[in-house]
Parts: sequence; structure tokens; C-alpha cells
Amino acid sequence: MPSYNAPIRDYQFALNEFLEIQQYQGVVPGYDDLSIVDPILEESARFSQEVLFPLNQTGDEQGLKYGTDADGRGTVTLPDGFVDAYQAYVEAGWPSFACDPEYGGQGLPHVVNTPLIEMICSANLSFGLLPGLTHGAYTALHLFGTDEQKQHYLPKLTSGEWTGVMCLTEPQAGTDLGLLRTTATPKDDGSYAINGTKIFISCGEQDATPNIIHLILARLPGAPEGVKGISLFVGAKYNLDANGEMAERNNISCGSFEHKMGIHASPTCVMNYDDAKAYLVGEPHKGLRAMFAMMNEARLLVGMQGLGVAEVAYQNALEYAKERLQGRALKGAALPNKPADPITVHPDVRRMLLTMKSFTEGARILACWTALHVDFSHNHPDEEQRAGSDEFVQLMTPIVKAHLTEEGTRTANTAVQVLGGYGYIKEYGVEQYLRDARIAEIYEGTNGVQALDLVGRKLGMNTGRLLRRFFHPVEAFITENRDVPEMAEFTKPLYQAFRSLQQSSMWIAQKGLSNKDEAAGASADYLRLFSLVTLGYIWARSAKISLEKLGKFPPTESLRSSTPPQVGSNSSASLNSPSMGESDSGTESGGGEEIDSDFYEAKLATARFYLNKILPEHYSLIAKIVAGVKHLDMPEVALKSA
Amino acid sequence: MPSYNAPIRDYQFALNEFLEIQQYQGVVPGYDDLSIVDPILEESARFSQEVLFPLNQTGDEQGLKYGTDADGRGTVTLPDGFVDAYQAYVEAGWPSFACDPEYGGQGLPHVVNTPLIEMICSANLSFGLLPGLTHGAYTALHLFGTDEQKQHYLPKLTSGEWTGVMCLTEPQAGTDLGLLRTTATPKDDGSYAINGTKIFISCGEQDATPNIIHLILARLPGAPEGVKGISLFVGAKYNLDANGEMAERNNISCGSFEHKMGIHASPTCVMNYDDAKAYLVGEPHKGLRAMFAMMNEARLLVGMQGLGVAEVAYQNALEYAKERLQGRALKGAALPNKPADPITVHPDVRRMLLTMKSFTEGARILACWTALHVDFSHNHPDEEQRAGSDEFVQLMTPIVKAHLTEEGTRTANTAVQVLGGYGYIKEYGVEQYLRDARIAEIYEGTNGVQALDLVGRKLGMNTGRLLRRFFHPVEAFITENRDVPEMAEFTKPLYQAFRSLQQSSMWIAQKGLSNKDEAAGASADYLRLFSLVTLGYIWARSAKISLEKLGKFPPTESLRSSTPPQVGSNSSASLNSPSMGESDSGTESGGGEEIDSDFYEAKLATARFYLNKILPEHYSLIAKIVAGVKHLDMPEVALKSA
Repeated sequence: MPSYNAPIRDYQFALNEFLEIQQYQGVVPGYDDLSIVDPILEESARFSQEVLFPLNQTGDEQGLKYGTDADGRGTVTLPDGFVDAYQAYVEAGWPSFACDPEYGGQGLPHVVNTPLIEMICSANLSFGLLPGLTHGAYTALHLFGTDEQKQHYLPKLTSGEWTGVMCLTEPQAGTDLGLLRTTATPKDDGSYAINGTKIFISCGEQDATPNIIHLILARLPGAPEGVKGISLFVGAKYNLDANGEMAERNNISCGSFEHKMGIHASPTCVMNYDDAKAYLVGEPHKGLRAMFAMMNEARLLVGMQGLGVAEVAYQNALEYAKERLQGRALKGAALPNKPADPITVHPDVRRMLLTMKSFTEGARILACWTALHVDFSHNHPDEEQRAGSDEFVQLMTPIVKAHLTEEGTRTANTAVQVLGGYGYIKEYGVEQYLRDARIAEIYEGTNGVQALDLVGRKLGMNTGRLLRRFFHPVEAFITENRDVPEMAEFTKPLYQAFRSLQQSSMWIAQKGLSNKDEAAGASADYLRLFSLVTLGYIWARSAKISLEKLGKFPPTESLRSSTPPQVGSNSSASLNSPSMGESDSGTESGGGEEIDSDFYEAKLATARFYLNKILPEHYSLIAKIVAGVKHLDMPEVALKSA
Repeated sequence: MPSYNAPIRDYQFALNEFLEIQQYQGVVPGYDDLSIVDPILEESARFSQEVLFPLNQTGDEQGLKYGTDADGRGTVTLPDGFVDAYQAYVEAGWPSFACDPEYGGQGLPHVVNTPLIEMICSANLSFGLLPGLTHGAYTALHLFGTDEQKQHYLPKLTSGEWTGVMCLTEPQAGTDLGLLRTTATPKDDGSYAINGTKIFISCGEQDATPNIIHLILARLPGAPEGVKGISLFVGAKYNLDANGEMAERNNISCGSFEHKMGIHASPTCVMNYDDAKAYLVGEPHKGLRAMFAMMNEARLLVGMQGLGVAEVAYQNALEYAKERLQGRALKGAALPNKPADPITVHPDVRRMLLTMKSFTEGARILACWTALHVDFSHNHPDEEQRAGSDEFVQLMTPIVKAHLTEEGTRTANTAVQVLGGYGYIKEYGVEQYLRDARIAEIYEGTNGVQALDLVGRKLGMNTGRLLRRFFHPVEAFITENRDVPEMAEFTKPLYQAFRSLQQSSMWIAQKGLSNKDEAAGASADYLRLFSLVTLGYIWARSAKISLEKLGKFPPTESLRSSTPPQVGSNSSASLNSPSMGESDSGTESGGGEEIDSDFYEAKLATARFYLNKILPEHYSLIAKIVAGVKHLDMPEVALKSA
């Protein structure tokens, strides 16, 4: 019943028109041949729509089966079709996209991998979790593994032949990893015996790949207490022989899996390590550093999960609203020959639809913008740019994770509301989006932890330099455009919101110095304010690009002067890129010279909506922030149910 | 795993201290003997906690069974224990609470029935739906039925021996009832033959009662199109003989039930009427009026569902947070001898808990306040008071329905977040609250419909007189207390928010005159603003009462001068009412003279939080409202997925 069409055209806008990635072709390694972008978008769309999406509802209904093997170890059977879909995913070469060619990867940029991730998450979030953490495991080993570890694990993780999983949480140690108790005892052969139980391990066991690589946090004998005594280990479901081939079964076993609100087709496992064989990755007691290499990547991925589910939820709400006839437009019948008008005529329904649309399209650009800087931070030839991009990514990571997942749930929730009773029943598929999306606000660091990361670490880091990586382009954009009449309706609300963000940043920085609780108490509101302003900036820029494309506004050099750092030249290639004529999003076709005016008019209307009907939330956020932490005080004894 | 303790003490606060219902004893019929209130609260709590709550998780897991009887008609089997629980409910006399003694009712006030409803919905929302609409059917028949209909149906509905159901929605007619197609053809015996299909009929079929009374909307032959051609009919699963006893089976049958996100133990039925026998209720083509008598009651009930689920979700989040040890307080360890501090030390966790608590306690008073005026509107000896109370109830109905259900979902969602991963798994029971609560925003008129009712009907009705039923007491309270130093921290934010509400009301009234879309486009934000101010007023008053009880503030006559209209005298009886000493909510016991200071300190802290950290949302709501409907415009062709 539900449907999904991958937003190819919107990705072309994000990559070609907003970020103008063509200018980096031949300049930044990985951006060597950008003619592959459109075919990749189309193939990503096809795979997601045709292979993954049809398994989404059936996977939810059927769920997982738990069993035991001949030795009594837990087995997990994925729903029908998932193993085949995973094989197709591997055969198509998707896992190797953004991996190092030295280990069989394609070395493509993250900015091109980003659409694939969103599309997979839209089509089938449970499936997305299956390969989802493999790249994190890959990254940890790539950065911190020994040569032998790299030779043994990376090719199989790159190809997707094996998956990688992250094994951190224990029953008493969730957010507070310092409390973890799993132990690692050195053996004579250089390996370690791991003993302990991990919980909430996504895809800790499954039947899609012959082997599963576990990245495990554990304590060495005599390790210091807390997070300074945690080390990272790598082990496998089947140990590897000297040639890196699968050998005997390791003592890693799945004790059970959780019954959850959603992602029913993704096993969330209890994993038991009973003298399991594993090897140290990186230095003793420095496991947290390696863990964060995985974790930061996983956080960006989880943000994409929120966006992906929001997109498919929005699409289905929109399709329903356009077809559902109830009531009449207040200004007179829109379809007088029909028994009623489509509910899109009702302003409150439009409000819901535009709220969803303005989030997904804004967030999509934020995701690509961040991915561009992930690429720059690794590969840009300019060292200063690498450092700056790394700071930008650090700043945006908690925002992408928390805001995109919070709005992911909210968008799915709004979609349920648009469908009314049909939204609440399983048949239409929309309630599943809400159940599936909900987890993303929790795992890989709850959204509260993201907010603390933003105010407690990122805000003050390098005397506020991270902040300036975002503030400076926004300031420059506002300065350039504030006196441009066509832009006033966009820049004015952006300016007001940006001022709230600046004032809030100052307030937190000052108050937080004398009382850290002030920063912590303001953190959730601050992260939301930051996020709303970020999307506000993205929408104001999108409006400017759209005005230019529609010829309502003479193109100026200043348009691009505050884009992500300029390197290279051919920045207007996007206008004539062959992809434009091929897009199926309503161009009146013709020569490829034709302007896709519906697309840009929609961007303008959505920008107008976002800046005037969503962004004003900044007024309440700053008021709540400066009200301070004192209102959170309550005598402990009084903190109880009434 | 989850637990539930009914908020008896908070109801005593709402009824005795906030509303001071004792003053109406002997004045308003039904308020004759208020010594029964405490025993009723305790028995309601016991029944909900001990009988209903233990069936909540099992009912969700087990769900419903569909089958067919010997004649091929659909049957529905409720989960284990539900039929016995319903029998216990009937035997205890709960259904007859607020019913007319002429038909076997107890004639008790709605204000005393309100706690029972909340507690049932907290303990087991699915169960709550089983008798839930019976009272609506009772009301429609009581108001519009013939004497014979009353004699036949009301005693069984009053006792609960039979249930009543509302049969409105059809596949093509949800919000827009004007589109309904079910027909009613007159027969020679004075009955009508009903033909059609209704969907989303809560408890349309079940196995807890021998008979089910259907209130059905249908069209008579030659009826005008639209809502002006709808009539109301009453039919029964088993027709009644001349004595009102069950006779032959009627041609009403359940075709199937929906598979839903939540309320798994409540059958949402497709009902087929195939020449089903029924009788006209009220006048031909005037069915909507009778339907609204049911519907308005149902809307208040649905608001209580939101509150009920929010309360149990909050309790479980709080209990978890107090026991879950993760991390350390930023100002130094709270429990240095433990491995970590409880997560209640973290300001952002406190923010979440106080957000939940300030909603549930404020909403509870709003529900009781509205119920008091329901009673007054029916039974108050003063005619003017009856009319005024009816207007107050009309004004508050969309607010209670929409705000309490929106926050119901939100509170359940926040509870999931407080529990983190444990919130997302079924074992802890909290994710069920989110799934169950979600429906309440949809049925009995979506929350968008409530907002339109508020701005489109209630705001302008009687030249704004409904509005003044709320605005006047708030203005009086602010005026009385603005210069009281102890009250400044409460009245100042209330004043600012109230001003936003007044300005928004004016803006909508003016703009809506020339363009109804302006009112419709602002409706959701306006309803939320109105709701936040309503709870703001409730919290400011609660703070004043608490300051007085704590002796921080001399009691003044003015405290009560803006309470709901005073009739009678013994208005300070509550202070010494026996119930105070009996409460089990943390009094240091002793003589009954002892002040429950933890309780009042908690009220003060919660009031402070609400007024300073929640209410500032008014700044953004008014900004969004006055931004106007123009930002919702979008070329129709551009309203599509990107």
C-alpha cells in the first residue's frame, strides 16, 4: 500500500546547485569523475525502491526467529527475502563505495554515499541496520588496526562479505561506558579472552553473512576505573586462521534478542562472550578514542535514518492528502464536480505537509554539506581546509544526529496525523515509520547526550573556533543579502533567529563557566535552536538559488562567495548537467535548457514557509534558555508521582 | 515490569484545594454528600491498579481473536481476563456513576467520575474503550430518545449490562460526515432497515456483554445531501421484544477488525448493516445534533485518555530515572559510595521529568474544572450559571480533547526517551504507552478539527462571550496578584503569555473576518497557545494555594474571589477535611494538622518550571500566528515530493 520514490532531483539540487560539487572535480581526491553521480543516484534509487522497499512491511509483520545451533548457540533468522536482498546489495558493490581502494574499496566520496544511505533507510530501516555499522568497524580498524588486522578484516568488510558490529553497551553501562565490566585477559598467543555480556547489539547475530566481526569494548587486568580503563578488541564469530580465512567457531553467542516497538526485522541482540578470542585494537586503555572513530560515523548515519524515514513518511502523507476527499476549501469548492475537495485545500493540512517537506529538504542539504566536509577532512589537498572541515564535522555531528532523528520521529508522527485513522492502522504502512524512526533518538548516544556534546565540548572547543565555522558563513550571507529586496523575506527572519543563536551561545558560554549545570540545563533547547538556524540558513540560500534560476534575480558572484570553501572553477556546470533533462520530477522536458520552474517555485514556497512559520520557534527557545537552570531545581524528596 | 499508582493525593488537591468543591455541597444537586469522594478515589485506585493494570501488557501482547458464529457472522474474542474484568467493573457499579437515578444511576457528579476515568485509562486504555462510549450512547438516548427507547435501553446501559457504540465513520466519510451513504428505509412496523458499512467502530463487536447498542448515523430516503440529511438511529445486536428483553439476532455483523499500532486489546471493527433493524432517535435529518451530544462527551473522555496514559508513562519514567545509575552530577557526586549517580541529577533528565509532571498535574485540574462545569451546566440551581457553565464547557472541549491528547503522546514519547534503550523494548511497558496514546489525537475529531472548532465556532460565538468565560477569571487573578511579591515569579510570565493570547485572539478575529483561511491557518498554533495559557493560569493558582498552605503567604479572601463562581459558603471546609490526614502521599503523618510540605514544595517547583520553562513557547506561537496564512500558499503543481 505505501509507496516510495527516491528524491533524485532533490539530491541533484543539493549536490550540484547548493554545494556545487563540480568545482572539486580533479581537485579533491575522490572527486575525480563526477559524471558517475547521476547514474549512482539512479541506481541507488532503483535498488532501494525495487529490492528493499517491498520487504519493509513484510519484514515488520514477520519479524525474526530465534533458534539454536547444534552446540546450543543462539541463531537468528531474518525475515523472508532479507538474505537475498543483502546478497544483491553485496553483489552490486554498494558496501565498498566509500572504502579505501587498497582494500578493495571504490574510494568514492561520502557526499555520493549519502544519498544511498538515505534511500536505504527510507526503503527499509531494518535492512539498513544490517550493513549499517560495518563501515564504523571498518573505520576503527583502518585507523587503529595493525597491518595484519587490516589485511585480515578490511577486504571482507569492504566487500560486505562479512558485517561488522559495535559491542559497547552492558546492562549497567549505557550512556556511562565507564561502568562497563566485560574483561579481556591476555593469552600466551597474543590474543585475549573476552568475558562478559553485551546488550542492545544491533545485528550481533544474523544469517545473512557467514562471519560477523565484533568490535568489543572491555577492560584489561588492572585497568584504571572508568572510561580511562577501556580498551578496544576485535573478534569474529568464526576465528580467522593465519591466512585470514574462517576457522573454528569462537565463543561468541547470541543469548536472545529484544522484542521492540519497531525495526522488527533487525535483531537487537544480547551477546555473550565466554572466553571469546579477540585481539587488541590500538593501545591498551585507549579504547574510547577508537570507539569514537566508529561512533562519530555512526552518529551521522543515525541522523540519516531519521531523515530517511521522514522522507518516506512525508511522501505517503502527501499522496494520501492529494487523494483523500473530505470537506470543502473555505474560499469555495476546489473540485465542484467531486463530492468534496482533497484535504490539501485545508490550511492546517498544508501546514503539516509543509512542516514535513521543509524539514526533509533542508536536512538533506545539511547531510550533504556535512558529508562534503567529511571528505574534505580526509582528502582535501589543503591542510588548513582539512582541519577546518574536521572542525565543521565535529560541530555538526551532534546536530545531524539529534535534530534529524528528533524531526524524523516528529515527521513520521505528523504523517500518521495526516492519514487520520488510516495512519493508525498497519495496512497503510505509516504507523510503522513512527515505530521504526523512534529508536534513532536513542541509540549511538541519546539526543540528550548529543546536546551535552554540543554545549559541553563543541561550543567551547578551541575558544569557540568550531562555532565560527558555521557562524561566519551565515554572517557573510546575511550581510551580502540583507539589502537585496528580493531576499528580504528570507534574510530578515534568518537574521532574527541567528541573533537569538548568538545571544544564547554567549549566555551559555558565560553562565556555564561558573555553573556547568547552566549549560547542561540549556543544552536541549540550544541544540534545537542551532539546528533550526542551520536549516534556516540552508533555506535562505536555497531561496536565493531558486530566485536566480527562475530569473527573478540577476545571478551575482556574491551568491557563491559564502558557499563552502571554493577550490576550482567550473561552478556553474550544474545548470547544464545532463541529469537535469533526465529527472522525472515534472520538468516540461524539451531541450534540457528548459527551467524546471515548478521545482524552484516549490523551493521558494517551502523556504518562505520555513523561515516564517517554523523558524520563529527561536523566540521561545532563547526565552527558555535564559530562564536558566534554577527552574529545574526541586527538593529531591518532592520528585515523585503526585 | 511497569507499575502504576493512582494519583489520589493530586485529585484531592484538584477537588478540595483548587476547586473547593465542598462549597457546592447541598447547593448543587449531586453534590449532596461529598464524604463519599475519598472512598471513591480509593476504590477507583484499587480497581484500576489491581484489576485492570495487570491485564494491560498481556492484552497488548495477546491481542484479539476473530472468528465466526454458526451463521457466519464475525465474532471477536477479547484477551484473557478482559471479560472477567468487565464483569467486575459492572458488579462494582462503576458504569452507573454519573447516570440518572430514574434509570438506575447513582446520580453522582462528573467531577467525581473524572478521576475514575483517568485511572482506568492509565491502567488499561484498551479496557477503557470497552465501556468508554456507553455513556455517550446513554446521553444521546437520554436527551433525544422516546420514552420507550429510554425504558428499553437506559437501564441496561446504566448498569453496564450492555455497552453502547457510536457508528459514524464510513470509508469515504471520516471528518466529513456529510459524505456518508448508509441508508435507513422506513418499514411498516415503525422501524427502519439500515444498509451500509461503518468502519473504525470501537468495540462494535466483543464478547464481554450479551448485547451491544448501536447508535448509527444514516440517511432517510430523499434526505438532503450533506450533513443536513443525516439522521440518528438506535439498533441492537439482538433486537428487543416488547418488554425490552433480548430477542432475535439483528443483521448487524462485524466483518473484520483493524490491525493497529496500539490499543491491541480493543476491537476497531468494520460493521456491516444488512437490512438491520433500527429506530429513529430524535427528528429526521437532525441526527447531527444528537450525534454532537455523544461526541462532545466523547471528546472530553478522549482528552482523559491522553492524560491517563501520560500519567502512567510519567510514573514509570520517574521510577526508572530514580533507580538508573549513569554518570555523575556536574557539581560533584551525589552518591559517592555508588558507582554512579541516579540520572535524576542530570538537568536535562530533570527537564524531561518536569515537563511530564507539569503537564499531567496541570491537565488534571483542567479536566476537573471542566467536569465541574459540566455538572453545573446540567444541575446548577441558577439558570445564568447553567448557561455560563455550558459556555465554559463548550470553550474547553476542543482544548481538553486536543491538548491533552497531543501532550499525552508527547509525554509517552518523552518517557521512552528517559528510559533510553529500555524504553524502546516491550519488556518495560513504556513503548506500549506511546503506541496506545497515539490514537487519541485522531479519533472523535482529529486535533486539527478541534482547532478549527475553537477558532471557527467557539472564538466568535455570542460575540466572544465564550472566550470571556476564561479570560475574565485570568485577568482578575493577574490583577489581584501582580503586586504580591511572592507571586511575581508566577504572575509575570503568566501575564506575558496571556497578552500573547489576547493579541492572537484579536488578530484571528479580525483577519478571519475577511479571509477564513487566516483563522484556519492559525488554528493549531492558537489552540496550543490557549492550552498553554490555561495550564499557566492553573499553575499560578496552584502556586498561590501552595504558598498559603506552606505559611509563606498570608491567606487572603482574594485567593478565592476568582475561583469558579461561588455559590454557598463553606468554602474553607477543604482545609480541615478528613481526607487530608488519610492521604498516603508523604505526609509525615501525625495529627492530620500536619502540613504535607513536600507536596506543596513540589507544586511550587513544578509551577516555577512550567511558567518559566514551558510557557515561553507563547513567544513563538504568536509569531507563527501573525505570520499569517500566506506562507502556506504553494502552487498546487509544486506540492509534490522532491
